Amino acid sequence: MLEALKEEVLAANLDLPRYGLVTFTWGNVSGIDRESGLVVIKPSGVPYEKLKADDLVVVDLEGNKVEGALKPSSDTPTHLALYRAFPSIGGIVHTHSPWATAWAQAGRGIPALGTTHADYFYGEIPCTRPMTEEEIRGAYELETGNVIIETFRTRGIDPAMVPGVLVHCHAPFAWGKDAHEAVHNAVVLEEVAKIGHRTLQLREVGPMDQALLDRHFLRKHGANAYYGQSGPTA
Amino acid sequence: MLEALKEEVLAANLDLPRYGLVTFTWGNVSGIDRESGLVVIKPSGVPYEKLKADDLVVVDLEGNKVEGALKPSSDTPTHLALYRAFPSIGGIVHTHSPWATAWAQAGRGIPALGTTHADYFYGEIPCTRPMTEEEIRGAYELETGNVIIETFRTRGIDPAMVPGVLVHCHAPFAWGKDAHEAVHNAVVLEEVAKIGHRTLQLREVGPMDQALLDRHFLRKHGANAYYGQSGPTA
Amino acid sequence: MLEALKEEVLAANLDLPRYGLVTFTWGNVSGIDRESGLVVIKPSGVPYEKLKADDLVVVDLEGNKVEGALKPSSDTPTHLALYRAFPSIGGIVHTHSPWATAWAQAGRGIPALGTTHADYFYGEIPCTRPMTEEEIRGAYELETGNVIIETFRTRGIDPAMVPGVLVHCHAPFAWGKDAHEAVHNAVVLEEVAKIGHRTLQLREVGPMDQALLDRHFLRKHGANAYYGQSGPTA
Amino acid sequence: MLEALKEEVLAANLDLPRYGLVTFTWGNVSGIDRESGLVVIKPSGVPYEKLKADDLVVVDLEGNKVEGALKPSSDTPTHLALYRAFPSIGGIVHTHSPWATAWAQAGRGIPALGTTHADYFYGEIPCTRPMTEEEIRGAYELETGNVIIETFRTRGIDPAMVPGVLVHCHAPFAWGKDAHEAVHNAVVLEEVAKIGHRTLQLREVGPMDQALLDRHFLRKHGANAYYGQSGPTA
Repeated sequence: MLEALKEEVLAANLDLPRYGLVTFTWGNVSGIDRESGLVVIKPSGVPYEKLKADDLVVVDLEGNKVEGALKPSSDTPTHLALYRAFPSIGGIVHTHSPWATAWAQAGRGIPALGTTHADYFYGEIPCTRPMTEEEIRGAYELETGNVIIETFRTRGIDPAMVPGVLVHCHAPFAWGKDAHEAVHNAVVLEEVAKIGHRTLQLREVGPMDQALLDRHFLRKHGANAYYGQSGPTA
Repeated sequence: MLEALKEEVLAANLDLPRYGLVTFTWGNVSGIDRESGLVVIKPSGVPYEKLKADDLVVVDLEGNKVEGALKPSSDTPTHLALYRAFPSIGGIVHTHSPWATAWAQAGRGIPALGTTHADYFYGEIPCTRPMTEEEIRGAYELETGNVIIETFRTRGIDPAMVPGVLVHCHAPFAWGKDAHEAVHNAVVLEEVAKIGHRTLQLREVGPMDQALLDRHFLRKHGANAYYGQSGPTA
Repeated sequence: MLEALKEEVLAANLDLPRYGLVTFTWGNVSGIDRESGLVVIKPSGVPYEKLKADDLVVVDLEGNKVEGALKPSSDTPTHLALYRAFPSIGGIVHTHSPWATAWAQAGRGIPALGTTHADYFYGEIPCTRPMTEEEIRGAYELETGNVIIETFRTRGIDPAMVPGVLVHCHAPFAWGKDAHEAVHNAVVLEEVAKIGHRTLQLREVGPMDQALLDRHFLRKHGANAYYGQSGPTA
Repeated sequence: MLEALKEEVLAANLDLPRYGLVTFTWGNVSGIDRESGLVVIKPSGVPYEKLKADDLVVVDLEGNKVEGALKPSSDTPTHLALYRAFPSIGGIVHTHSPWATAWAQAGRGIPALGTTHADYFYGEIPCTRPMTEEEIRGAYELETGNVIIETFRTRGIDPAMVPGVLVHCHAPFAWGKDAHEAVHNAVVLEEVAKIGHRTLQLREVGPMDQALLDRHFLRKHGANAYYGQSGPTA
């Protein structure tokens, strides 16, 4: 079942240690087959070096296990909430990557400080509000997804334009059109967290010029993109 | 004698350079066989790349050498004091890992700033008080153990819930149910020291919400843990 | 066509990941054949691990493609502007290397703080002024080159003496007599950005003594250089 | 001539990139044969990956070349001044290692902040005074040695107890009883520069307790040392 998606989600999970985003098993990637509404996700607590395609777990959008001998990631309800709320996304990654996690622990969103950021994220990568005690003691992982969704809705942010978030006192989530792109965006999020941190130690600066943000985001994304080998100016 | 324990302690010692926790020979791991009360520990000053199981030294809880051609680690009296005082622990690791050591040199405990910390340490990782001149000039390594024990007793900290400590102006010790878990916790301690350091450079924040600390620690530990492939929700 | 130059430019591009200067495809190197006025440059968006000499694109100094199946780097107009304005340079590299980019995002030039800097850069590595909205919305990549040229001309800096620049809110460019030397200087720029950043966290210091700057720059460069195996004192 | 010493100095030079202390050719190691008064040193500007024992240069203590086809390191007069002034040392290393160089650029000595430092350096690693214009314009590399010697003599520091120094606005030198130990001390110097830098970002602390400094230095050095497999308590 969903063999191609499993191979893709496996490869994306194995990219996490390759890019230095995880210590031990502190990360997981999922991908969705939008036609069937089924999600393939990493099993909980299995080391990357032992992970095989058959270990991946298939669940439906309500969290019922459809296939797999192992328990899915404990963060599965967060993934499912995001898939339900953000129809444009096809893959999700969660890590505790150390630069992005520092921003999450500080409770600060990462402002767009330069073109590296603008090439991928159209504005600040937001940090969610602190969760309430009720949310924490209740369906915690589901509520984690809900507070992310609330952040994007109340601030009017399009998740396709800002493919990542910091969960307050926790760590980042990133996403993309598929599992591979989600990991790509998680790498970028960690990189801009690192460069931004170093920037603010040199000088407290505000966000970059809006025209420059527009230019860089739009030269890589959308109808008039002209970066890479495809696109109108090829 | 204790061949299985020696292999386990050897593997745990070799994990120190693998995880980037040590420069030269600046670290050592021990494990205890609680039934016989015998401790297996790294010999002093032997490089990891030359270390073999037969080089490990067996001592009893009073520090008498029971087996081994080499001198045990000069930190052996610290290890033994902790084994005597903390019956729940089965392995101990000492390193000068560079992020945790910075906190120790600053004389600051590492507050619980986020869920990465909360997944493993139930509250602040304490820093001991400065040792007195008498303690330093006396049985120094034993007194190092004593000041760790005092720190946990006077602050009412359970060493099974906070499996690590910073020794003031010195460096970290970590422990666990066995040598392997002790190294695992030493890696986590270094990681939270790094992320916490970066957090405080972004903003001086206080410790995380208690409900969130509870939730994360308890979803990985105790009777109702639901992270990983074992536990009640499997 | 220009096979030797293509091999040199290919090798210089592959050095970018080897020296840790790039994430994904965030960098490009070009080289010029001054006799024919033709420039060899990396194609846009092609991963380094798949890059072959035949993928490189040949353009003339006005940007007309002379050879190659792929689109040249989107930064090509910046490279060409620099080749037209700075006749002494033969190779150019652009990266988003994370220490130099932090300085660019902070809008600060890197002052000459020590001899590591002085060995290669004869004074501050300047940061350009912010670009205007007109420049950003217009021929953006060409204007990026223009603002670099303006920076060197208005401040009276010789690009052969200061072989690099920070583009405001963007990232560094470096250059040299050929593609290989350009990458060498990009590595040095990143290194002095890192050391300088750490220096300012210890103490806010001003630029180094002018006599020391002179001594170190001139012992490696110019008619009386005496570093290395060539030169008058060999 | 001096084949064993050449092999030792070659190995010590190759350790510089292995321990991450150098970029390009930014470092050199020498060793002295005290009986003949001859010094073996790295040639200037030769990459480590191409360096062979036969490339090393033999000079006498006055700097006359005794053997070798290549030019010796441009820093040779600094090495020779130190060998002449400090009879207890047998090997010297100079690098631009990035943490120690940050302290040198800030013009700050590295205070003894913890036991990692105390295990090797008996007190602050000093930073020299700025050199005068006369010294810089004169026999610069010789004067670099002289200002190091002045620092140790005027402050009453024994170079055998503090085997390293920061040259103001330049970079570190370290030494030891032979070339191997000199590199060992250079690694430690870089490590304590890193940990000390991170310490001061957490809190401005003064030097460690003197009794603790004594205890750690003396448990590894001197007549009553008890660290490692040799020494009186073995």
